[in-house]
Amino acid sequence: MITVLRIGHRINRDKRITTHVALVGRAFGADKIIITTKDKKIEDNIKSICKKFGGDFKIETGIDPKKIINQWNGTIVHLTMYGDEMEKSIPKIDKVRDILIIVGAEKVSPYFFEKADFNISVGNQPHSEVAALAIFLDRYSNGKWIKNQFNGKIEIIPSDFRKKVRKKVNE
Amino acid sequence: MITVLRIGHRINRDKRITTHVALVGRAFGADKIIITTKDKKIEDNIKSICKKFGGDFKIETGIDPKKIINQWNGTIVHLTMYGDEMEKSIPKIDKVRDILIIVGAEKVSPYFFEKADFNISVGNQPHSEVAALAIFLDRYSNGKWIKNQFNGKIEIIPSDFRKKVRKKVNE
Repeated sequence: MITVLRIGHRINRDKRITTHVALVGRAFGADKIIITTKDKKIEDNIKSICKKFGGDFKIETGIDPKKIINQWNGTIVHLTMYGDEMEKSIPKIDKVRDILIIVGAEKVSPYFFEKADFNISVGNQPHSEVAALAIFLDRYSNGKWIKNQFNGKIEIIPSDFRKKVRKKVNE
Repeated sequence: MITVLRIGHRINRDKRITTHVALVGRAFGADKIIITTKDKKIEDNIKSICKKFGGDFKIETGIDPKKIINQWNGTIVHLTMYGDEMEKSIPKIDKVRDILIIVGAEKVSPYFFEKADFNISVGNQPHSEVAALAIFLDRYSNGKWIKNQFNGKIEIIPSDFRKKVRKKVNE
């Protein structure tokens, strides 16, 4: 089971980035996102996307991160540009255990660096927690996320037609 | 040469997502981003990051996308959840030619689907243009982006220390 823990979410400033973090989690194979700040709008938005596009992705908001971390029975990974190289770190992760992936907004307190079993960087240049989560989950799953089936009401049929956009609606 | 063309950027709504798109472009090996909407703040922000972290990444904003596309001498790729599977499409791209990667905000007009040599999807689930660009550039470069050297004033030294964050400042 893969859980994303989004910390430091500021409702106005981060709403779109956090939404992208959640959707990347869902699309790239995570089972759940926990957002530490209570944000009913993001909850509703993600639930509505799940309802349309399928799958069993869960979202919870307004949860104390320290409680999650202290009770976590599994591996804790913190994605940070200051962390160790993913090529070295990912092979060390026991994939049988549950994994909690901490994804911060701009400033992350030393507490999370300390509590993580692995502080992992997806490159050491500044870029995006959205990209970092996608690349991490891609490497962690050996690219298998792309085969995930969601059985949603809406399914996009891949197409190289320049103009046509095809959707399959199951109901 | 790899150029990212960000279309449909709305200054208030998209400022953080477009900033992430630009930074992902830079970190994952693109040479330049063109944002069709004029946005001096994003320009300054990206230039200031480049100044600190190095490299030769360029940014231009307020450019007519049709002019860019019509004058483009190279391949045009449009990243879209409706596009063809990247595993099938990326091997068809001639890597010797310059590439323009179109990254849209929410709604993209059929014009761009038509003008693209390749409409490519990074999975067919809704997620994020930030993640799509990162995964596309990762696959397009066979993961080689991670070895790019930026020779910046600030360089992050990868570290698995739980608490310590090390930075090397060259001047």
